[in-house]
Amino acid sequence: MLFAVTMDVAIPHDLDPGVREDLIAREKSYCQELQEAGVWRHIWRCAGQYANLSVFDVPGNDELHHLLWNLPLFPYMTVSVTPLAAHPSALTAR
Amino acid sequence: MLFAVTMDVAIPHDLDPGVREDLIAREKSYCQELQEAGVWRHIWRCAGQYANLSVFDVPGNDELHHLLWNLPLFPYMTVSVTPLAAHPSALTAR
Amino acid sequence: MLFAVTMDVAIPHDLDPGVREDLIAREKSYCQELQEAGVWRHIWRCAGQYANLSVFDVPGNDELHHLLWNLPLFPYMTVSVTPLAAHPSALTAR
Amino acid sequence: MLFAVTMDVAIPHDLDPGVREDLIAREKSYCQELQEAGVWRHIWRCAGQYANLSVFDVPGNDELHHLLWNLPLFPYMTVSVTPLAAHPSALTAR
Amino acid sequence: MLFAVTMDVAIPHDLDPGVREDLIAREKSYCQELQEAGVWRHIWRCAGQYANLSVFDVPGNDELHHLLWNLPLFPYMTVSVTPLAAHPSALTAR
Amino acid sequence: MLFAVTMDVAIPHDLDPGVREDLIAREKSYCQELQEAGVWRHIWRCAGQYANLSVFDVPGNDELHHLLWNLPLFPYMTVSVTPLAAHPSALTAR
Amino acid sequence: MLFAVTMDVAIPHDLDPGVREDLIAREKSYCQELQEAGVWRHIWRCAGQYANLSVFDVPGNDELHHLLWNLPLFPYMTVSVTPLAAHPSALTAR
Amino acid sequence: MLFAVTMDVAIPHDLDPGVREDLIAREKSYCQELQEAGVWRHIWRCAGQYANLSVFDVPGNDELHHLLWNLPLFPYMTVSVTPLAAHPSALTAR
Amino acid sequence: MLFAVTMDVAIPHDLDPGVREDLIAREKSYCQELQEAGVWRHIWRCAGQYANLSVFDVPGNDELHHLLWNLPLFPYMTVSVTPLAAHPSALTAR
Amino acid sequence: MLFAVTMDVAIPHDLDPGVREDLIAREKSYCQELQEAGVWRHIWRCAGQYANLSVFDVPGNDELHHLLWNLPLFPYMTVSVTPLAAHPSALTAR
Repeated sequence: MLFAVTMDVAIPHDLDPGVREDLIAREKSYCQELQEAGVWRHIWRCAGQYANLSVFDVPGNDELHHLLWNLPLFPYMTVSVTPLAAHPSALTAR
Repeated sequence: MLFAVTMDVAIPHDLDPGVREDLIAREKSYCQELQEAGVWRHIWRCAGQYANLSVFDVPGNDELHHLLWNLPLFPYMTVSVTPLAAHPSALTAR
Repeated sequence: MLFAVTMDVAIPHDLDPGVREDLIAREKSYCQELQEAGVWRHIWRCAGQYANLSVFDVPGNDELHHLLWNLPLFPYMTVSVTPLAAHPSALTAR
Repeated sequence: MLFAVTMDVAIPHDLDPGVREDLIAREKSYCQELQEAGVWRHIWRCAGQYANLSVFDVPGNDELHHLLWNLPLFPYMTVSVTPLAAHPSALTAR
Repeated sequence: MLFAVTMDVAIPHDLDPGVREDLIAREKSYCQELQEAGVWRHIWRCAGQYANLSVFDVPGNDELHHLLWNLPLFPYMTVSVTPLAAHPSALTAR
Repeated sequence: MLFAVTMDVAIPHDLDPGVREDLIAREKSYCQELQEAGVWRHIWRCAGQYANLSVFDVPGNDELHHLLWNLPLFPYMTVSVTPLAAHPSALTAR
Repeated sequence: MLFAVTMDVAIPHDLDPGVREDLIAREKSYCQELQEAGVWRHIWRCAGQYANLSVFDVPGNDELHHLLWNLPLFPYMTVSVTPLAAHPSALTAR
Repeated sequence: MLFAVTMDVAIPHDLDPGVREDLIAREKSYCQELQEAGVWRHIWRCAGQYANLSVFDVPGNDELHHLLWNLPLFPYMTVSVTPLAAHPSALTAR
Repeated sequence: MLFAVTMDVAIPHDLDPGVREDLIAREKSYCQELQEAGVWRHIWRCAGQYANLSVFDVPGNDELHHLLWNLPLFPYMTVSVTPLAAHPSALTAR
Repeated sequence: MLFAVTMDVAIPHDLDPGVREDLIAREKSYCQELQEAGVWRHIWRCAGQYANLSVFDVPGNDELHHLLWNLPLFPYMTVSVTPLAAHPSALTAR
């Protein structure tokens, strides 16, 4: 089941630089593990923004919430979620 | 070059049913040709909405505009466009 | 899987009264069948509004979209969808 | 009498971790007592958000306000309240 | 139990003048009956707007909805409802 | 002359607790004096919010501004003002 | 007592041209009478908009409402009203 | 003096096709005359929108308003205006 | 050339009181000099707000920007600017 | 390929003045290098705002993102991006 998710990131300016770098590194690693697992299907940078548009493939709402809640940068994100369905004009299921 | 495009459709309630069906059929055909050409990379229905989230792969802004402007349903759509860039955490270019 | 759905209804003032009554009757019947099937779990009127807040229990996004798209009043509704997950403080799964 | 209530939580990043954990524990305990009392009828997590959608069953506005005002996390919440009425299509009173 | 209600009125410009006058006359009469019954406690015109701010005193949400739904001008109104509670600084209950 | 005023209060979380309590006590006292003087005609709590809806009866805009500007909590409030006029359906001037 | 008033005009495209011209002529005449009476103190066109920013000097809210309600174009306007008070830095009362 | 102007166009769907084409032709001709005169300095299509972003060079606000008000499509446009000043980092005055 | 300018002021609560008073004093003095020079034509307090509505008479956009940018309270203001043109119904140029 | 970009700047009030000046100097230098390279085609100050409207000419979305992301003031900016296409009424390609 697919969900489009937009994540806007706003890390506080006064966060300790070491903590910040560690967060970003853990975020990247977490993201890549989920990509390898086929769960985080797409991630694109929104040009000119500290934000991304992503597509997740998960069994349901609970799994989606679990994944997002555990993002290392989650406390600094504004997240919006759009559940996606198959479009009648799409040539393939995906 | 990728662009995320959201299209919200609002066909007037009093449009002639034959005109309406023709428009929708032409929209579907137009959409599928562009999918086959590899230009309209993704199209998903936003669940519960007469709307879709799409991703286009085009050489530039002019080509994107040309494609959208010629959508048979364009006069009845509210369109929003987000230019996408590669994300540093993405495992693959796409 | 649960979804909260808000439906705001705006039937055009100039719709034929017979068509209007038929639509409303079919909407009610459709709604009650889905309640009996255990799919449309809750429906409440938002006080002072021609709107409702509902909770659906469906296998996934596609089924949710199918149900909403086929509401007799769908063409006259503004719909918003919120995917729901289990809350860690909830005493029961539902 | 039913009310839908949405609570968005934003605990300041610099709150003392011990204070934070205590608040969250007290919030959970408060929430579960009200569930057991039949007052806090539903609580769902909005997927991907530090937010919940709840339904309360209270004698009136004063009691609703009293309950919400005393939430341990109330000072860190943005709350919206929608009074609910019986829907003419609902099969049961609830 | 008190509710603040804002009603913005937008009667279509092409409504038959006789129908329009009848609606407005019935709205006034309906409003005054509810004032005499002590239910419609206050009604003020928002200066410069075809809108009013009102306060209702009703037993609950269902009664409030019933009253508003039956306003002759309800189909032409945008309504917002705010449930009111006693304020700790108020000298009197009302 | 009547004005509806909505006051949303957001006291900073890190304000000294003593200062906070003093502010709230002075706000209450100020509010009650104006009620006794017949100027602050109504004050209701918006259920579930740290906010109130009030009605003031003042000679004019300057007096209204003076009253609001001197609220002890004014620096922590978001205020909105709606000038009220007599409604043609109102049974009494007030 | 001064009020800033913004008026956005949207005359329906299908209004009879004769009716339209008559409305605009009556609006102009009404506006100029109130200017001569010293009530409509300022009227400026918002550049690039079918809108104006005006300042009225009236005894109170009721008089302001009466003036605006009787604007020939009132049914086609979106109006916003801001009550003005003396500014402590102003050199003159006006 | 420069102004950025955004024009969103919404021609009614039921406008006579001949009238529509005539309007668009006159709009184009009007636009090109002003470009040749050096007044309409830039016009860009907003990709995916029936809208443009333009920059005008005019002696003042009155001239800007006169130009925009006389656009053949003005009655069907939503216009926003941003006055522009020299930027301290700009290498050239323009 | 006239511009309407709205200034909303939000001085941080933790600003040093001496700095604050100095800023406000310099703002007042700056404002009054510009009034005497005939540039800051009107300044009104928006009732109930730490905000003003002003009208400036300047040669152009650059001069307007220069004046606003140098307001002592500029770093704490949210400013909006509306270019004004002569209104065809105005009896006098101003 | 052209993009319109709006940048609203909000440097925290408590940033060290030396750091602030250094940031602004580096921003200016970065901006001027890109102007000289023909990439940052226009930069205008939005009158009365700490904001600019700019036009960039870049090969694509990735390059645009790279340029904006590396702006020294990027962490303190709210950025919006509009992809621009050729307008059919434009006399020249630019």
